[in-house]
Parts: sequence; C-alpha cells; structure tokens
Amino acid sequence: MKKLDKTNHSQCTGIIRPVQDALDVLNGKWKLPIIVALLHGYKRFSEISRQVPGITDRMLSKELRDLELNQLVKRTVYDTFPVTVEYTMTNYGETLKDVIEALHVWGENHRHKIFGEDLLPVSAKKDHLG
Amino acid sequence: MKKLDKTNHSQCTGIIRPVQDALDVLNGKWKLPIIVALLHGYKRFSEISRQVPGITDRMLSKELRDLELNQLVKRTVYDTFPVTVEYTMTNYGETLKDVIEALHVWGENHRHKIFGEDLLPVSAKKDHLG
Repeated sequence: MKKLDKTNHSQCTGIIRPVQDALDVLNGKWKLPIIVALLHGYKRFSEISRQVPGITDRMLSKELRDLELNQLVKRTVYDTFPVTVEYTMTNYGETLKDVIEALHVWGENHRHKIFGEDLLPVSAKKDHLG
Repeated sequence: MKKLDKTNHSQCTGIIRPVQDALDVLNGKWKLPIIVALLHGYKRFSEISRQVPGITDRMLSKELRDLELNQLVKRTVYDTFPVTVEYTMTNYGETLKDVIEALHVWGENHRHKIFGEDLLPVSAKKDHLG
C-alpha cells in the first residue's frame, strides 16, 4: 500500500531529468576544474590551462566551446596585436556558483563523516585533482 | 598579472575535491533515480526497482549496498514471515535533498534557457529517464 506523499513515476522522472542536466554540465574529467578556474577569474587560455593540470590544449578548446554553446562562458576577442582572447563566465554561468557551493558543502561534510578527511568515500575510487 | 581575488592552485583543487566527491555520490546511470525513489518514500526492493526502469536486481543490490556503505541508506530486516527488508534514507542521506534541489532548480532553468523545455542541452546527448 502506498503512502499519500509518494509521487508517481512520471513526477519522479520529472525531477531526475533536470537534475541530470545540471550534473551533465559539471560532469566529466575537465568541466568542473575549468569552471572553477573561470569562477576564480582566470581568463586567458594559458592561465586556465595551468589551473587544470593534465589537460591538453585540444581538450581545453573543446570544453570551452561546449561551455560557450551552453551560454555559460563568453569568449571575447580583443583587437590587439597580437590578438587577445579572453574567456569569462557569463552572468548566467555565475549562477552555477550556488550549485557548486551546495555540492562543496555537502562533499566536505561527506568526506569528514565517512572517513575523516584524508580518505576517499567508497564510491570515489577514481583520481581526484589535488 | 594576477588579480588579488584569484586563489592559488591548491585552493582551487581544495574546492574541486569535495565537489567531485558529492558528484560521485550522485553520478552514474542509477544512483540518482534510486536516491530520488528513496527520498519519495519507496522502501521495498521491488518498489524501488519499479521506480528505476531498466535496472537489474543485481545492479540495484549493488547500488543499495554502495549507498549503505556511504551511510546514506539504512537497510532494516524485519523478523516477519517471510522476512521483510526495507531500505530508507538515513537522516544524513536526507541532507542530499538540498543538493538535489539546487541541481533541480538550476537544471530546469538551464533547459528553458538553452533550448526551450523539449530539447536537451548541448552536453546532454545521452539518454535521460522519462
């Protein structure tokens, strides 16, 4: 017998789809460190690259273009000599800050709760930056 | 030349690690729909299974065990005949609600912003539930 506060399946999946969309924006090996670098004010390709150890130029280009298509990042070309290119978070991209902060707070707490801070949680067997 | 509000690389990665931990808890094909089903009050293995279309019993067992090891889910065996097993979110697991809600709000907004609600954002080419 089902409790009254249970939603039906379509309501469930209605929650899952947008959450998955948000996760997709942050997922993968590179997106999050690139976004964090941009949120910290790094603007030049080479600067951002240094903040994301191990990334190739080709991959960084691809990821930045993907973020641009998602309207999270703005690419500005300045008519200097040589040409200067800057990447900045859009106002919309800045709204990711709250989401990342919620994940940050929860993740720190999780780390402390499960193992103490030096160990990784059970599901996090892959490499972490830093 | 760096602006004063830029943090150094170790501070950057100090943010990334816990955020990645939180993402790892929600990531993969099955974790999020299972957690959403549990947060909606589904307790029995078969009930949860119905809320997560396509999951095998073996995979659901594995994922529930993983969530239990992360102290997010409590498994209770009742001494009935036949034995009853219930899975519920722990108080700690319930704290994921806020994180999922933050992702949900952002993801809904993102979907509207980028394409209107019927289309997927650029980075979300894979299948979604629902």
